[in-house]
Amino acid sequence: MTTDDPRGRILDAAEALLRRHGPDKLAVVDVARALGMSHANVYRYFGSKTELFGELVARWLGRLEGPLAAIAAEPGPAPDRLKRWALTLHRQKREKVSVDPEMFAAFDKAAEMARPSVAGHLAHLHAQLTAILADGKAAGLWPGVTEHSALDVFTAISPFSHPALVLADGATDRSAQLARVIDLIDAGLRSST
Amino acid sequence: MTTDDPRGRILDAAEALLRRHGPDKLAVVDVARALGMSHANVYRYFGSKTELFGELVARWLGRLEGPLAAIAAEPGPAPDRLKRWALTLHRQKREKVSVDPEMFAAFDKAAEMARPSVAGHLAHLHAQLTAILADGKAAGLWPGVTEHSALDVFTAISPFSHPALVLADGATDRSAQLARVIDLIDAGLRSST
Repeated sequence: MTTDDPRGRILDAAEALLRRHGPDKLAVVDVARALGMSHANVYRYFGSKTELFGELVARWLGRLEGPLAAIAAEPGPAPDRLKRWALTLHRQKREKVSVDPEMFAAFDKAAEMARPSVAGHLAHLHAQLTAILADGKAAGLWPGVTEHSALDVFTAISPFSHPALVLADGATDRSAQLARVIDLIDAGLRSST
Repeated sequence: MTTDDPRGRILDAAEALLRRHGPDKLAVVDVARALGMSHANVYRYFGSKTELFGELVARWLGRLEGPLAAIAAEPGPAPDRLKRWALTLHRQKREKVSVDPEMFAAFDKAAEMARPSVAGHLAHLHAQLTAILADGKAAGLWPGVTEHSALDVFTAISPFSHPALVLADGATDRSAQLARVIDLIDAGLRSST
């Protein structure tokens, strides 16, 4: 919990209300009341409910990105990092669903109202995957890597990370299948066609 | 339109009502009224609304399966058939969304009430894909094919055919990307690991 800066405190209060009442009922006036401040004061930090939502979603998604960014930045072999990156993403999404399904659903809905934050998150994941693939290509392991590979690989493994699909199958652990799909992709990238 | 047998006429009437009013409002009594028959008579052919829905969904999905089954049964090279099979499935799903989005959404909802029909449809697609992959393996092209390959390949291309995802991205034509994903899978299957 962030308690030292007003923006952090506002986001903490908004996240708690979102968790309790869902995104539809989240109002800036309720966030202000929970903090004992005027809602004009909240608007000094966030220009609109949409902006507040956007920050909230960006912060939530940002928490996922740290471990993934660390894997992308490691010096080890790219195929191993690709597999751990994909499995970590799958595990994170499952944990969000199984530990706190209402929170997950609320954030999924909130994310609809905060598309720029989601786009930013996807851009970060895309950059991480691009880095891993470039390393594998530079090492001579993956001659098949092209400018499209990051998007294509991310799409092929999205059944294991897309919120709607992870939620729909009840956060089932499909790590074994994902590992096989990654092996198939890895083998494909080793071919130069 | 099927007009000669009572079951077909009932299904035609139910499909028309579903299209007009959506799945929540579809009642057996309305289907009976549209055909000028008693609703007891409808129940002679379908034991419940769920059974009627199930048949409706199975018939709708069955229309998609014909062209796919034909590709799976062709004698040509498996890699070419895999690509055409995947592209045909993607096109079919996009057409359903763009030609008649309300019908697509209604059937998507109806499908929730008719899981056995959907499971049957997926089993047919799985069998078709298994046949194509087995042909490629038998021809010596795809040593990488295993007992898991049909499920793994179907999952990796599901972002191009899953109703929720096709609907969410507005039936965008992503054939070029799908063709690249299939090329990557094809290259992976050519490896024996």
